[in-house]
Amino acid sequence: MVNAIVLMNVEPKMINEVAQKLVDIDGVSEVYSVGGRFDLVAMVRVPDNEALARVVTEHFLQVDGIKASETLIAYRSVSKFDMERLFSVGA
Amino acid sequence: MVNAIVLMNVEPKMINEVAQKLVDIDGVSEVYSVGGRFDLVAMVRVPDNEALARVVTEHFLQVDGIKASETLIAYRSVSKFDMERLFSVGA
Amino acid sequence: MVNAIVLMNVEPKMINEVAQKLVDIDGVSEVYSVGGRFDLVAMVRVPDNEALARVVTEHFLQVDGIKASETLIAYRSVSKFDMERLFSVGA
Amino acid sequence: MVNAIVLMNVEPKMINEVAQKLVDIDGVSEVYSVGGRFDLVAMVRVPDNEALARVVTEHFLQVDGIKASETLIAYRSVSKFDMERLFSVGA
Amino acid sequence: MVNAIVLMNVEPKMINEVAQKLVDIDGVSEVYSVGGRFDLVAMVRVPDNEALARVVTEHFLQVDGIKASETLIAYRSVSKFDMERLFSVGA
Amino acid sequence: MVNAIVLMNVEPKMINEVAQKLVDIDGVSEVYSVGGRFDLVAMVRVPDNEALARVVTEHFLQVDGIKASETLIAYRSVSKFDMERLFSVGA
Amino acid sequence: MVNAIVLMNVEPKMINEVAQKLVDIDGVSEVYSVGGRFDLVAMVRVPDNEALARVVTEHFLQVDGIKASETLIAYRSVSKFDMERLFSVGA
Amino acid sequence: MVNAIVLMNVEPKMINEVAQKLVDIDGVSEVYSVGGRFDLVAMVRVPDNEALARVVTEHFLQVDGIKASETLIAYRSVSKFDMERLFSVGA
Amino acid sequence: MVNAIVLMNVEPKMINEVAQKLVDIDGVSEVYSVGGRFDLVAMVRVPDNEALARVVTEHFLQVDGIKASETLIAYRSVSKFDMERLFSVGA
Amino acid sequence: MVNAIVLMNVEPKMINEVAQKLVDIDGVSEVYSVGGRFDLVAMVRVPDNEALARVVTEHFLQVDGIKASETLIAYRSVSKFDMERLFSVGA
Repeated sequence: MVNAIVLMNVEPKMINEVAQKLVDIDGVSEVYSVGGRFDLVAMVRVPDNEALARVVTEHFLQVDGIKASETLIAYRSVSKFDMERLFSVGA
Repeated sequence: MVNAIVLMNVEPKMINEVAQKLVDIDGVSEVYSVGGRFDLVAMVRVPDNEALARVVTEHFLQVDGIKASETLIAYRSVSKFDMERLFSVGA
Repeated sequence: MVNAIVLMNVEPKMINEVAQKLVDIDGVSEVYSVGGRFDLVAMVRVPDNEALARVVTEHFLQVDGIKASETLIAYRSVSKFDMERLFSVGA
Repeated sequence: MVNAIVLMNVEPKMINEVAQKLVDIDGVSEVYSVGGRFDLVAMVRVPDNEALARVVTEHFLQVDGIKASETLIAYRSVSKFDMERLFSVGA
Repeated sequence: MVNAIVLMNVEPKMINEVAQKLVDIDGVSEVYSVGGRFDLVAMVRVPDNEALARVVTEHFLQVDGIKASETLIAYRSVSKFDMERLFSVGA
Repeated sequence: MVNAIVLMNVEPKMINEVAQKLVDIDGVSEVYSVGGRFDLVAMVRVPDNEALARVVTEHFLQVDGIKASETLIAYRSVSKFDMERLFSVGA
Repeated sequence: MVNAIVLMNVEPKMINEVAQKLVDIDGVSEVYSVGGRFDLVAMVRVPDNEALARVVTEHFLQVDGIKASETLIAYRSVSKFDMERLFSVGA
Repeated sequence: MVNAIVLMNVEPKMINEVAQKLVDIDGVSEVYSVGGRFDLVAMVRVPDNEALARVVTEHFLQVDGIKASETLIAYRSVSKFDMERLFSVGA
Repeated sequence: MVNAIVLMNVEPKMINEVAQKLVDIDGVSEVYSVGGRFDLVAMVRVPDNEALARVVTEHFLQVDGIKASETLIAYRSVSKFDMERLFSVGA
Repeated sequence: MVNAIVLMNVEPKMINEVAQKLVDIDGVSEVYSVGGRFDLVAMVRVPDNEALARVVTEHFLQVDGIKASETLIAYRSVSKFDMERLFSVGA
């Protein structure tokens, strides 16, 4: 799996609307409205780099109202919880 | 719950060590080694702003090797999945 | 209570007008016209993060003439005066 | 009265200590630990520019642990509440 | 008296025209065309902060062709010459 | 005559000391302690570019405590008052 | 041979289209869609600086959708593999 | 395969030495000394993101003399030549 | 004589055209198309600061296609060759 | 011939000394002390890119006192005067 954190600046009047559209995209798990230099942060989790390419260029950047974006691709992640275990809790 | 995304620049030779120390802090769920202008991104999830203050100033910023950090506090989050449901899958 | 300091750049000809509109928003206590890299600074004080989300995205960023904004969310504040005591001076 | 908002970057391990020292300075009303590009924000309220000069150069900038600071001097402020009235509530 | 130095970026084709309009404003003593990151620098000298507010927001920022401006408000000035003495030379 | 505006960042604890040393340099007429991204602004007025070179490199930049400086050389100035006339007022 | 690495920011909706047009230009060997502050990176390899001038100004910068570009001209390159040898493998 | 372009600023006196050490690292194909804001650019080509993590954190960032680095991870690449074919030319 | 180096960003499609127009201006000796953060660099050599003012504001900045410019005014120059001697070689 | 413009920031107290050392390097024709964001600008003119590599990495960057440098490599230059003709004036 490949994780990416996308930092975005958005048209001031469209923040809630853009956030809603982004979270509906396959591979986007969460979208945060944040304080600071950026307006929105989206968490993307996809099977591989090619899927990331499709999510970013074909879906993400087609959303109106995004003025600038910076995609931080994670090449390694350390997690406190084992996410796979979560899904098998009831198994 | 309050979510925060912490963007960090770290001493080049200490990236893996810092990442490991950060993920051991209470309230930190994941730490990513990322490409781009930043070196590490940590996801923090705590009950309230006061807990965030403690995590950031008493634990996070006491870790050696962090050169600069920028904490993006989320004032709203939109999630695709209902995390609470995950935990009750087996219930 | 959650405090936030909002730094703004505003259309040069609309500074006074924007300042007046901002101070009329619920949760905004003061607006300063300042020297330096920013044009206006607004102090926001609301009950919780969700209220901050509403103030910022539904009221603040709908005001015409704001070119860029950066919201500094305070996760802790230290005050010289006990504000509550002020209100009870005459009690 | 002259108002100023001081944005600061502080040594990571000294944030709480610096915040406490700043709030003890005459003319400083509140100090916020904030998310984003800055670490601390202090609100200064003094009788005139000469008092501001004394507070900033003789007290503020003598505190150890401040790496960089940017003072936003307000040349006008619009307030929702009439602060003077607060003090006379009990009169 | 309050002094302020205003750094400006101006539409390339309007530099001389903007400089002339600025120097005609009450409270502006000199305007310089400068090399470097900025195009024009104006020196403002007014009785108090409220007068500065009027000069900047009601006159300065109403001039067409100013793309960006940054006002450096002086909270203290050290002068080699005693300006008052100059005016009394012939007295 | 050549005018230059020198913007400076100074060691926090040395601002007043540096300002005093700068104003004593021949060719420096005024030094301002300012709010914003810079700490001090010095106004230099010398007969020609070669004199400016001497003032800046042999005197200015030899003062301890200046961390960074940016010299804005004016290639033209528009003045409201005719400075020469001031000196001849009593003639 | 002269190598150059061209870093580009591109209109969000045109990334794939611009990448395809760039790789079709003579002298461009590869185009990468990348995470971080830039959107596309193109590798250019031409016989001399004059050829680089033609590729950049007459072909590259005529492509619609490039908002900003920064060309890093290599004045020396160290390669692990001897590229010439590759072509003679079957000889 | 995952491609990454690493932009670096290096201690001025160590550029040639750092370039040589980098090109000896497994997965680094070429290192360029470049003009502009960066000093060195390294091209990395490895089987997957985990290999990129090892190359960057365990080898790259352990080289002395690198002051700052920014890794642009390619999530898609378009190539004019089919590299695999090159190797089979003589087949 | 006064020397100035003018760094410019230019509309991508107009680089060659702007370069040609600039070199035709009196006082401009050479124009370079360069790699890096800037697109064009022009060398200006004029008798005095007032001539520089005329060249920059009346000729340079009237050329269409210049998006941003930064004029570095030289207050001193050290030359390996004595230019005057060059002109008298054949005398 | 390859031309390059090198923009430098230098230790404040060493500007004149560094300028003198740079102009003595083969291939450096002129060094300017300039106003603005940079301290020194050097003009380099060498036969080819490999010579530029030697001048920059083996001579330039070995000079003490250079804090940061940015080399703008010209891939094309347009000159008002034909420099070669100058040398043959007396022929």
